[in-house]
Amino acid sequence: MSYERVAIDELMINLNPLQTAGRASAAVRKAVARFSDGYSVCDRCEGVLHDIEKPDIKGFTAELAEFIGADRVAVTMGAREGKFAVMHSVANPGDTIVVDGNAHYTTFMAAQRAGLETFIVPGSGSPEYSIPPQGYAEAFEQCKSATGKLPALALLTHVDGSYGNLSDAAAVAKVCHDAGVPVVLNAAYSAGRMPVNARELGVDFIVASGHKSFGASGPVGFMGAVGEWADRLFRLSPTHPKKNIELLGCTARGSNIIALMTALPIVKKRILNWPAEVEKTRRFVEGMEKIGDIFQEGVKPKQHDLIRFDTPLYHRIGERHRKRGYFLSSELADRGITGLKPGQTKWFKVSTYGYSDAQIDYILASFAEIAEM
Amino acid sequence: MSYERVAIDELMINLNPLQTAGRASAAVRKAVARFSDGYSVCDRCEGVLHDIEKPDIKGFTAELAEFIGADRVAVTMGAREGKFAVMHSVANPGDTIVVDGNAHYTTFMAAQRAGLETFIVPGSGSPEYSIPPQGYAEAFEQCKSATGKLPALALLTHVDGSYGNLSDAAAVAKVCHDAGVPVVLNAAYSAGRMPVNARELGVDFIVASGHKSFGASGPVGFMGAVGEWADRLFRLSPTHPKKNIELLGCTARGSNIIALMTALPIVKKRILNWPAEVEKTRRFVEGMEKIGDIFQEGVKPKQHDLIRFDTPLYHRIGERHRKRGYFLSSELADRGITGLKPGQTKWFKVSTYGYSDAQIDYILASFAEIAEM
Repeated sequence: MSYERVAIDELMINLNPLQTAGRASAAVRKAVARFSDGYSVCDRCEGVLHDIEKPDIKGFTAELAEFIGADRVAVTMGAREGKFAVMHSVANPGDTIVVDGNAHYTTFMAAQRAGLETFIVPGSGSPEYSIPPQGYAEAFEQCKSATGKLPALALLTHVDGSYGNLSDAAAVAKVCHDAGVPVVLNAAYSAGRMPVNARELGVDFIVASGHKSFGASGPVGFMGAVGEWADRLFRLSPTHPKKNIELLGCTARGSNIIALMTALPIVKKRILNWPAEVEKTRRFVEGMEKIGDIFQEGVKPKQHDLIRFDTPLYHRIGERHRKRGYFLSSELADRGITGLKPGQTKWFKVSTYGYSDAQIDYILASFAEIAEM
Repeated sequence: MSYERVAIDELMINLNPLQTAGRASAAVRKAVARFSDGYSVCDRCEGVLHDIEKPDIKGFTAELAEFIGADRVAVTMGAREGKFAVMHSVANPGDTIVVDGNAHYTTFMAAQRAGLETFIVPGSGSPEYSIPPQGYAEAFEQCKSATGKLPALALLTHVDGSYGNLSDAAAVAKVCHDAGVPVVLNAAYSAGRMPVNARELGVDFIVASGHKSFGASGPVGFMGAVGEWADRLFRLSPTHPKKNIELLGCTARGSNIIALMTALPIVKKRILNWPAEVEKTRRFVEGMEKIGDIFQEGVKPKQHDLIRFDTPLYHRIGERHRKRGYFLSSELADRGITGLKPGQTKWFKVSTYGYSDAQIDYILASFAEIAEM
């Protein structure tokens, strides 16, 4: 029995923001194919995944820490797993965490799994939906009034998955530290696309996603800590002194770590191209808004490739089309474009990451053509 | 940059018990290659990994539950992750868990991560190191005396990774239920090699490893629950009602779930061959013990392919060899055989799983030849 990926999706331009920076390069695909067996990296292990020298996971771990600006890192199965590990290490059940209003749902899952109460820093609402750094100070005060103490941890979603807003991590980190609250940066949509340095930003913890933004076959990600918090996050077992409790000993014990290792040098090069990616996103926004009643939501101008459009134009067409709202994804599919939720016309999210100018022109022409229906 | 698997290991007969039942078939390798991109299974997701119909993860999940004899299952990143999820769902920090004396180190990691105290059911010691089901009743009494209450959970390692003993799960489950203690079966070394049915055995939870015993590229595994415990393990978020708290929403969101899906039909066939595998293991033990001072440890006759040998014969050779204890792995490598810890001669663990009779003869002849040195 063979499982076919929805084949047509593989041949299409996929605009889904989840997918654009997660496409695996030929190098990653080849590397993963060599390590397809279970425990494939463990032939020469002496007890700890991150210390394996053949393949050079040990060297890679040091390189990754330097790349992300952390004192120590560990590979995880993704950003959400890292978020839970951080929350579980820093806070106790019943404690509070302050998160931004655009946080990914997994931030709330991790908090609930860790038994934490959540206070939310409200966004600015329409049209920007931005997160004001000072909002953290207000949330801390709210928390102190309600619970009698400061939150155990704060979290900022560096780039959120709703509007693609790039928040001011350094400013938020400062507010948190002025109040004495440690802060974790969810860099799932930023690290791997643009330069991100935890130490420079002043955050205590950082989590990243390999399968979202590093073009790594996953699930795989990593987490890092700066300063004294590294000992807490990476604390060892009292009974099995080589084994890390939060990692349950070993995490990415197979081909996924090879994927991340192969992806890193490629990522180091591609993040240098980030300004061009942003420029392309802004050009795309301009082209889309020219078509008619299409409006980019979130902070303008764009500082990230994830775009949310409010699209009354397509909604109106859908109201009178025989295929109803499904006309849009159907027309796009006919043109070799996928990634929108079928049936969705009032608004949608797309990402332009990695597409050529010619492809961007084609996508714009397609949306323009469909708008004439 | 390309990462080479320790190439010689790929061409060798690898006796490492971690590896033998984790080798990915051609079908799994091909399937995984099609899904190498990040979030590759998520193109048609409506919010929950386990409900995706294209590819048919939903159908697979139902099939897997039926296969393992659970009311509900979820794919995880491996057995250890499942163990933590179960412990974290059933017990509170400060509670106690009773585990068998041959438990994998990750059982202790999961317990420590969940903040649980551990009581151990002692093994029978040399030469069998077996776990007496009645030992659980004694451990429960011990726990009640020490803490004032029964443990929150019991765990049995179905087949342990030290001696390859197959424990009587049904008997242990009965003892646990007679005492009112829920029990989780760690089937990492059993499910995928031999028929295992949680309901028939009478256990409440079961965890399995795809990369250890299903020939699935990982890291990937699954966990299941029977009866009322399913609701507890798979509890949903109060704020995001479709999302499962313990799974942080979604787990195997990439090629690893495709690997497990592709592996399942192959596993369903191969477990029918289990008696032949056991027969082969016993033949191998007989052949090894004939060579000289080599003794199979653990329960005899073998009921599983993981064998621990006490090997004074090789230790004596190592004492006078110029390569010291490293002579053994070196001589084996010259003969195309790997999997022992370099330097180890007093004892070692091997697995015969999946090798042909001709390969078994060859391995025996190699060990015999080396013994003449």
